[in-house]
Amino acid sequence: MQFSSELLEKAVAEFARLPGIGKKTALRLVLNLLQQDGERVQQFAETLMRMRQEVKFCQRCHNVADGDICSICSNSMRKQDLICVVENIRDVIAIESTQQYNGSYHVLGGVISPLDGIGPDQLQIDSLVARVQKENVQELIFALNPNIQGDTTIYYIQKKLQSFPVKITTIARGIAFGGELEYADEMTLARSISNRLPVESYVSRP
Amino acid sequence: MQFSSELLEKAVAEFARLPGIGKKTALRLVLNLLQQDGERVQQFAETLMRMRQEVKFCQRCHNVADGDICSICSNSMRKQDLICVVENIRDVIAIESTQQYNGSYHVLGGVISPLDGIGPDQLQIDSLVARVQKENVQELIFALNPNIQGDTTIYYIQKKLQSFPVKITTIARGIAFGGELEYADEMTLARSISNRLPVESYVSRP
Repeated sequence: MQFSSELLEKAVAEFARLPGIGKKTALRLVLNLLQQDGERVQQFAETLMRMRQEVKFCQRCHNVADGDICSICSNSMRKQDLICVVENIRDVIAIESTQQYNGSYHVLGGVISPLDGIGPDQLQIDSLVARVQKENVQELIFALNPNIQGDTTIYYIQKKLQSFPVKITTIARGIAFGGELEYADEMTLARSISNRLPVESYVSRP
Repeated sequence: MQFSSELLEKAVAEFARLPGIGKKTALRLVLNLLQQDGERVQQFAETLMRMRQEVKFCQRCHNVADGDICSICSNSMRKQDLICVVENIRDVIAIESTQQYNGSYHVLGGVISPLDGIGPDQLQIDSLVARVQKENVQELIFALNPNIQGDTTIYYIQKKLQSFPVKITTIARGIAFGGELEYADEMTLARSISNRLPVESYVSRP
């Protein structure tokens, strides 16, 4: 792409560094900003800088937080003895958006993946074990992606927690709502048969 | 979406105001920025602010410029007596990227569209007429989108320039390279037949 302004070119290059943003999209965004009020663009830029400088990670669950402890961990209305273990912050937001879960979280920051060079030490596993040890945790719910890395991570953590009297569960795998049986992959279909539920428990769900 | 950090929520909202960026994409971009160095994010934000504050519009052709006159207008290697009339800055970038055009531009800032409340007075038409009048312009090439608004704009400007000895042309309409004849719309196909070219001129093109 040929630009007649270096400033414009730099701004487009900055946007194009973001994931999933190509040069054409970057140009569209920059030209939109160029048409907006100077104050609006100033506000946009300042919000980003403030976010980067001031957002912290919760010392307890490693979720994003405005202070040392996140709003979920400091909420006494939530069951703090129930921990949902997730891979990243996006998963927390996804589960929170269902408005069905009332426990706390633990963000691992990834899953064990030797091929990518990610071992247990790079993840927040020790702090999870420490939480189980110190806090009176009743149940851990693993909400990891259903693949080898996710399963390996569950297996590893489960081994580490063997000596503690904590219930360990994982979110249900099966055919998605609205999904069609004939298009489901064999693995999912096979698991959904072996993990079949009594109809009463299914019907009583919200 | 439920966020555990207000700063994060604000940043996502700012990104989601941009065209074509939904909440999920905005979140992905913000989390990416959050993982980057503080300095990189600072640089990103500063580039945007500088761009908005310092980018000017060329006083001659209304293209974006770093000074009063853009790099295309101030380039003596380009034919300044040949003007390509376009709707917006994106079109300039698209044509520049072909690296085939060696004249100057004139950015109208839109096309005549009574339904959207855009009349000739809101566009840079007077300054185009002034350029034709003052500069020794040999040819105007209209590169507007082939629709009613574009055609109306060409017709209007052509009328205004009737008394000047300037050649007025428009970019060719026809079947795109790689396009399939059977999927072309009737209008394009009909125009490409009525504006057919001698084979010699076609073959000799780059």
